[in-house]
This record gives sequence, C-alpha cells and structure tokens, in this order.
Amino acid sequence: MADTSYTAPVDDYAFLFREAFGLDVVARATGGELTAEDATEIIAGAGEFAASVIAPLETVGDRVGARLENGEVHLPDGFAEAYQAFVEAGWVTAEAPVSAGGDGLPGAIRAGLGEIWNGSNAAFALCWLLTAGQIHALDAAASDEIRETYLTKLVSGEWTGTMNLTEPDAGTDLGAIRTTATQREDGTWAIRGQKIFITWGDHDVAENIVHLVLARTPGAPEGAKGLSLFVAPKFLVNADGSLGERNGVTTVSIEHKLGIHGSPTCVLAYEDATGYLVGEVGGGLAGMFVMMNSARAGMGFQATGIAERAYQEAAAYAADRVQGRVLGRDGRMPIAEHPDVRRLLLSMSSKIFAMRALGVYAADLLDRAEHDASIAPLAEFFVPVLKGWTTEDAVQTTSEGIQVYGGMGFIEETGAAQHYRDIRITPIYEGTTAIQSNDLVGRKVIRDGGAAAEQLFAQIDETVAALRAHGDAGAARSADRLERAVAASRRATADVLGFADSPRDAYAVSVPYLLLLGTLAGGWMHGLAVAAVLSHDVRSERDAARLTSADFYGVHHLPRVHALAETVAAGEIA
Amino acid sequence: MADTSYTAPVDDYAFLFREAFGLDVVARATGGELTAEDATEIIAGAGEFAASVIAPLETVGDRVGARLENGEVHLPDGFAEAYQAFVEAGWVTAEAPVSAGGDGLPGAIRAGLGEIWNGSNAAFALCWLLTAGQIHALDAAASDEIRETYLTKLVSGEWTGTMNLTEPDAGTDLGAIRTTATQREDGTWAIRGQKIFITWGDHDVAENIVHLVLARTPGAPEGAKGLSLFVAPKFLVNADGSLGERNGVTTVSIEHKLGIHGSPTCVLAYEDATGYLVGEVGGGLAGMFVMMNSARAGMGFQATGIAERAYQEAAAYAADRVQGRVLGRDGRMPIAEHPDVRRLLLSMSSKIFAMRALGVYAADLLDRAEHDASIAPLAEFFVPVLKGWTTEDAVQTTSEGIQVYGGMGFIEETGAAQHYRDIRITPIYEGTTAIQSNDLVGRKVIRDGGAAAEQLFAQIDETVAALRAHGDAGAARSADRLERAVAASRRATADVLGFADSPRDAYAVSVPYLLLLGTLAGGWMHGLAVAAVLSHDVRSERDAARLTSADFYGVHHLPRVHALAETVAAGEIA
Repeated sequence: MADTSYTAPVDDYAFLFREAFGLDVVARATGGELTAEDATEIIAGAGEFAASVIAPLETVGDRVGARLENGEVHLPDGFAEAYQAFVEAGWVTAEAPVSAGGDGLPGAIRAGLGEIWNGSNAAFALCWLLTAGQIHALDAAASDEIRETYLTKLVSGEWTGTMNLTEPDAGTDLGAIRTTATQREDGTWAIRGQKIFITWGDHDVAENIVHLVLARTPGAPEGAKGLSLFVAPKFLVNADGSLGERNGVTTVSIEHKLGIHGSPTCVLAYEDATGYLVGEVGGGLAGMFVMMNSARAGMGFQATGIAERAYQEAAAYAADRVQGRVLGRDGRMPIAEHPDVRRLLLSMSSKIFAMRALGVYAADLLDRAEHDASIAPLAEFFVPVLKGWTTEDAVQTTSEGIQVYGGMGFIEETGAAQHYRDIRITPIYEGTTAIQSNDLVGRKVIRDGGAAAEQLFAQIDETVAALRAHGDAGAARSADRLERAVAASRRATADVLGFADSPRDAYAVSVPYLLLLGTLAGGWMHGLAVAAVLSHDVRSERDAARLTSADFYGVHHLPRVHALAETVAAGEIA
Repeated sequence: MADTSYTAPVDDYAFLFREAFGLDVVARATGGELTAEDATEIIAGAGEFAASVIAPLETVGDRVGARLENGEVHLPDGFAEAYQAFVEAGWVTAEAPVSAGGDGLPGAIRAGLGEIWNGSNAAFALCWLLTAGQIHALDAAASDEIRETYLTKLVSGEWTGTMNLTEPDAGTDLGAIRTTATQREDGTWAIRGQKIFITWGDHDVAENIVHLVLARTPGAPEGAKGLSLFVAPKFLVNADGSLGERNGVTTVSIEHKLGIHGSPTCVLAYEDATGYLVGEVGGGLAGMFVMMNSARAGMGFQATGIAERAYQEAAAYAADRVQGRVLGRDGRMPIAEHPDVRRLLLSMSSKIFAMRALGVYAADLLDRAEHDASIAPLAEFFVPVLKGWTTEDAVQTTSEGIQVYGGMGFIEETGAAQHYRDIRITPIYEGTTAIQSNDLVGRKVIRDGGAAAEQLFAQIDETVAALRAHGDAGAARSADRLERAVAASRRATADVLGFADSPRDAYAVSVPYLLLLGTLAGGWMHGLAVAAVLSHDVRSERDAARLTSADFYGVHHLPRVHALAETVAAGEIA
C-alpha cells in the first residue's frame, strides 16, 4: 500500500532561514518583524497541517481523480473539506501580498510553504497555486471595483482563480490566441472562444471560480500586443456581492493525464461569457508577466516538493526492507545499507537539498529586488534557472525513487510511480525548459553581457575563499570542486556570449547551459551549507549528514558542469 | 489520438549488418549461409508484420490491459489473433536455436527482431521473450521426455513459457526462495508455494502455458545451492500429447502497474502442482544462468525498441506541428526546426543509434563466443553494459519524447506518456542496474584485472586511428573526443581495480562506472559509423545524417564520460 505519511523538512528550512546564507534571511526580509525562529514555526505548522489534512488525499486524488459529470467537475471525497480547512487555517491569506489584503509572508517562507503544499499533495496544491497567481495579477492591474468584488474573495480563499492562456493553436506562442472579447453597451465584455489546459478550471471545492482570460479585442493589432486581460467568473456576481446566474463558460471536457489526476485540467468554452477588463486594452501580456516570476518559482517549489515526497517514501522503504547480505556490514541489515541503494538515496537527498536551498535563496532575492533595483537583474536571472533545473532534475529524482524499490516500484500500489507520473508536467507547464532557457540566454545573459551570471560566479568565488579559510579537508575538497566548476561556467558563459550574433547556436545549447548553471548553483548551496556547519563548535549528527550530502553532490552531480560546458561550447550541430 | 504507426529501422540494420563493423557480420556468423542482404530482408519482413499486426494493439493493450476474471486472465480483443499470426508466420521458431528445433537465426538478426517486436508492442513482445528464454533453458538441461513434450510445443509457438523465480521475500536474493518441491512416488514433484511478478503467468492467447519454477527440495542446503528447476504446465499433458486436466497452479491476482498493462504480471499459487525436474537436483540456479545473457541482452533490445517508438512518434509530431516563428528560418516551419526541439530529437536518435549498434555488436559477440572461447570474456563483459546502460538511458529518451510535445505530451491520448511508463520497468527486471553493475565490476572487471575492459579500449584506439587516417575534419573531431573519452575510461577502470580490496568503494560507484562504459561504447559505435560513411565515394543524405548524429552524440552525450570518471574515482562517500 502507498505510504501516505509526510513529514515537512522543518530542520532544513530552519537551517536555511537562520544559518546557510550567513544571516537570518527572514529578519532581513521583514525588517525584523519576523525572525528565522518565527518562520520555522510557520513551516512546522504548515507541515503538520499538510501531513494531517492534505497528504492523506494524495492517493485517492490519483486513483479516483477529478471527474466530469453532467458538465460539472467533481473532486474525490475529502477534497472540498480539505480545501475549506486550508482556507480556514488562513493559508491562502497568509501568502497573499499585504497590498491585496494578505499577510504578505516573505518569499523565503513562501518557498517552504510551496514545497510543503506540493510535497503533501501536488494536485491539491495547484488549486491554491493558480489562485495565488491570479491574486498577484489582479493586485497589480485591476480596478478598485474588481479588487473589491473579486480580489477580496480570492485572498480570503472563498473563491479560487484560474489562468486562461492556452488555446489549441496557441501554446508557447500566445500571439496566436484567437479568443475574442467585444465590449457591450453596458461596458462589460462578451468573451468567445475555447481555452485548453485550464488547471482547476472547474471543481466543487469552492463556491465560485474566477477565470483570468487572455483575449483579443476588435481591431487589436496582430500578435501578442493585441491581447487584453479579462476577469470572467463562473457565477456572475450581484451588486450586493451575492452569487447570481451562471456565466457563459462551460467545461467541455477534462484531460486524461499522465499524472496529477486530482487536478482537473479543463477545456473551457466561452460563449458570450461576461468579462471585465483588467488593466488597459492591449495590456494583457504585461498583466500576465506580473505573476510570471512567482509562478515559475512556484514550479520549482512544486518539483522540489514532489521529489522530497518520493525521497521520504523510498528512504522509509529502504530502511525497513531486508533483502540479501549487505556488503561490508554484519548481520541482517535493511537495503538502505546496500552501496547502490545508499547511492540512490544520497543522490536524491543531496539534489533535493540543493533545490530547496536555491528556492529559498531565489525567493528571498526576488523579495529584496522589489525594494532594491540593483538586485533585480540577479533575481530575474535565477528565475529560469530555478524553474528549469529544478523541474528537469527532479523528474530524474523520482525515477531514482522508483529504482530504490526494485520491482515493487513499478507497482502502482506502492506509490512511487505516482510521483514519477505527477512530476513529469513540471518541466512543461509555466513555460517549458526550452522557454526558460531562451529567456535565460536571451534576456538574462546575452542582453546584459553576462553581468548577472558574473555576479553569481563572484559570490561563488567568495564561498570558495570562505571554505578554504576553514582549513578543513572536506571544505578544501568542496572548494576545489566549486572552483573548477565556476571556471568551467565562466568559459561556458563566454561561449554563450560569443553566440550573440548566431542565435541558433545560442538557443541550440540554451538548455544545457541552463542545466549547467542550475547544477553549479546547487553546488554553491552545498558549499554555503558546509561553511555554515564548519562554524559549529560541536557537530551534530545532522551536521555530519550535511557534510556527507555536500561531498556526495560534489562528486556525483557537480562534475556534470564540465560535461555540459563541453556541450555548450559546440553550439548547434549542423 | 495516439499515433499507432510504426516503421522498423531497416536502413540502420542494413548499415550495421553490412558496413558499420567493417564486414558482413551476418555472413561471418553463419559461415556465409545468410548474408547482410538476407538479414535485411528478414528485418524488413518483421517490420512489416510488426507494423500491421502488433503495433495497432499497443494502445488498447495499455488502455484496456490484461484483466483477471474468475481466476482466468484475458487479454484485450485482438491479442490472441495477433499471437496466432505471429506463431504462424514462424517468428517464434525463427529465433529458437537449431538444437531445440528452431531456425537458429544469428544474434545480430535477433537483436533487430528483439527491437522490432518490442518497439511495436513491448507488452505483447514479453510473451514471446519469456518463451524464448525458457526454450534456451530447456534446450540446455531438459531430459528427452521434457524436450519432446514441452520444448517442441514452445519452439513451435503453440504453448508459451514463463519464468517463476521471484517470491515476496526473494527478489534479487534468490537464495531466500521458499517454494518447495517434494518428489512423489510416481517420480513427479509436488510444488507448493507462491510466486510473484510472473510475466504472462496466465493468459488466453495460447492453449497451454509452461511454467519454469525455481523451488527447494527436501533436505536441500540453504541458499541458492538448494534450488532446483521444474517444469509445471498450466494444463497437464496426457501421454498422447493432448491436454489433460488443470494443474494445481492458480492465478491469485494480477498487478496494477505503471506500464506494460498489456502484459499480465501474475501472482501464482502452487498448491500441490505437478512438476517435472529439469536437469539435476540442486542445479536450478545454473539452469537459470543459461539464459541470463540472452534475457539481459533482450532487455537492451526492448529498451531500444520502446525508445525508438517514442522517437518516431515525437519526430512525426514535430514535423507536423507548426507553432511560433522558427529562429533563423523563413516562413511557417514545423516545430522540428526550433533549435531546442531539434536538440531533443537529435539527442534521442543519436542515443538510439548507439544502443542499436551496441545491441548488434554484443549479440554478434555472444554468438561468436559460443565457438571461440577467447571471445567469451569480452562478450560477457558487454552483457551488463548493454542491459544497464541501454535501459537507464532509454528511460530518459522517452522523457525527452514527452518534452517534444510540450503540454500534449502529458495527455495520455497522445501516446508519448505510455512509452515513458512502459519503459520504466526495463532498468529493474532481469536484474536491476545495480545487479548489472555489480556483475560488471565484480565478475567482469576486478576478476580479470580489467583485461576485457582493456580489449574494448584497444579496439577504440584502432577506431581512433582509422578516423584520423581519413583526414576529414569531422572524423578528426570524433577521433579527438573518443581519444579523450577512452583515456578517462582507462583511468576509471584503474580506479575500480584499485578498489579491489575495498569492495564497498567499488560497488558504490559501480552504476556510474557501468554508465561510463555504456556511454563510451555508444561513442565508439558512432565512431565506427563515421569511419564507414567516410569510405563512401558519394555521400547520401542518410550518410550526412549519420555524421550529424555522431557529431551530436560526441558533443551532447560522450562528455558525460568525464563527469562519471570523476564520480568513479571517489569511491563511496562515507
């Protein structure tokens, strides 16, 4: 039977909030209003809630899944109650920005919460994730009337939100969108068209759904510049805020997907549906970009969460299962002690720590960039790296999870296969890895001549120096490996910059370059962890495990930087 | 809708049979009885059969799957007819050894057939694959009576075979098997116990099923030495060869698996089932080992086949789908021209060619080793490399296939997800990658002091020299890359040999070492292809594609050898 237990990685977050980056990042982000200690308590509370309320629904979400019956989407028993409990516990409001009426928790904490909601139940978490994205978009651009009518209900969690971008012939290429919005005499807009891949596009866990729709207005220019943004609720809202009649948006079908079966992915038909303009006519794409950073970072947290869940279950199985004699060990030992099972588990956990740490680092950077423009380029640089690398590598991490079980991993009842299926969407949605890498190479490396990349490398230089200063053999090994990796990364960056005039070369190796930077950044995170641990007077067992994890990452994952640098140097193979 | 078309890679096999290895490998293997031209015709015929009869059932095999009803397993409509057609076309007999009454096709051709049956329908192919394995086991050890009664029916294809090894507490550790066999007064044996993970353990596509069962006899020593091998048919066989009553073996349940849903995986209960001893009492494991090489190589062909199918479908989709403007190209172009989609497709196809070529090479080597003991160590060395590397890398290849589709790849109707699910079992069954790598490092590298590995390296040296001799720039690049890769591989081998007295170090990096050798061997296969193509007076478009594929592999895949060598050098991270 699938292991439905879940334990939030509270220790890791405490370490990241307080120590790994050399200061209390939560206190810095909140001007001391919250400390790392407070943040750890929030994470622990979320972890308990997730373990008791959300995690137990992960399996039924997969097995039963969302169903479309008579035009209405139904979630499995328990989902509506869990969502109501999630809202009542204040978790939707907690993460919404203060300007929108939320508690405005800092990014470092939101990174942890994002991992926890997704780790305990990724399909469930998507409902919240889409709502959170819409809150950002409306907060940035909506009129007071829309804020009052819709945003308040989203921030309270009473209603949920969706993003309506994709159409059958407009996926990555949003400029090809054909859904139209025509203004009526009363000032509202009539929306007509079909949208696909609408996550949580219909459901029965909240009383209303607010669709945020990209559509083309009459006479608008071709391409993406002609798009505007509209709010179209499932149920129209009366002047007194009560729910009125059903709007002209219907669920045509839901997709039969590889994973996240508990998240309904809808085809929505807009037939003269009533919409309300958000922002300016023609400002649709800009309105969408507002939330792109948080949505993409959110995908990183999702991938980390699913990978962590896969790890926890595989580690528990390996600690329990006894099979064969363990080499170099006496007595009957669990398979976790077999050299290759140990390798698989360390491979998973060392990568997950790197992803988690990079998530906290990048989220904190995005926070700080809001108040300090000099930080913005580096923060923007990390968004595609976090999204692209975390999701790509986390897919492989869940595959390692299956391998730990041997034959049992292929049996659905075990639960390992669900993670492998669920996670496969993460390198695709919110922009495929190619989209991330094109954004990285085009807008964040070539455009600034590699300045943001060099900021990263210079910080790694500092960590190398700090590791050297410790005089510890393990730290010296970490320093050596990081130093070689950063040198290769500088060469790769120079190679990419050299492709500025032959863009096909740049974009043919943009994914390898993105993975190189992610792998390097992961090694840096471990380097920071080693430096922090070595400053302890007495080393705990947990500290020793951190050093082992860093050493493992340095030997098994970081060397990939050199292989990828060779790939990047070649450009396109014609 | 899923693309159900399939085209066997006949061109590649023609090239491999006739050219890539510098001579007609089929003529050499058959003493001229068959030539590369004959072999290509066989492959083409199999390809047509597979495309028209087997491939169309792949999707229904997945969607409907095998079902257990009232104790009997039923396959979806069409499976029984397809299996009968497969038998009547002579494909089972074609591959069985001459000594067993088969046509005894050489290994090089069997590699191609293995890929084709699996590429067109892996779940269907498993029925044949298990039968083929049992044919080898009975051919090596069974009495004349068993040969007459069972082997002839297996070779004709009228009955199918299964392998009964695993039990709930005896997977990798066969020594823990508890199923018992007690001799009755009439000389037959009473088998009692439970076997799990029995592929095609019950079905309705043939009239009888022959189970080959590992069991423990009374008073037998503990562990694997106490195991004997028995034949136990589903229906007992009367003296005249007609089918008698049902034997005491029943299907308790079938597994709900991540993939290969069209292949019933059964839990079988033996309750006083009648069995017949195969070989000697206590000779069970030796009997199983007989077919291990062919079964493991067969998994390599299966993984190659599934990856090829994933590639064909992704390539067809990318050639058809138009989305966005293609960088550096004019007009509306399909997504196949986008730099990163092109990268994904080349990554898949260049890896698949390497796997396919290594399959032909290793299968031919195993053939030749039967008549030339001096070849045996190298042939044995390649078995775990082929099985381990092909299956591990092919899993990632199917993931790349999904990525080509973007969001559509996550929708089951597309068909890409099925390959990603189906293939995930290949690094697990017939010995996990860890089992392969332990076999490699322990029995095939450390035991012979690296002699077999050095034979591989020396052959690569020759290819490097041959490439250099061409004086072509592309060939020189291939030579340089191969030369560096083989140097790193020699160092890694020396490192592994250095761990002879610290086995945990050796086994903690045995999988990375196996992957290193597979990646290197794949690069060698491309090197051989380049050398062959360069000898053409006029180069065709296909030739140019081979050179591009080799260049791509050299830049995107081969550099991984260097990263893995760094991992191997470290041994276990304590």
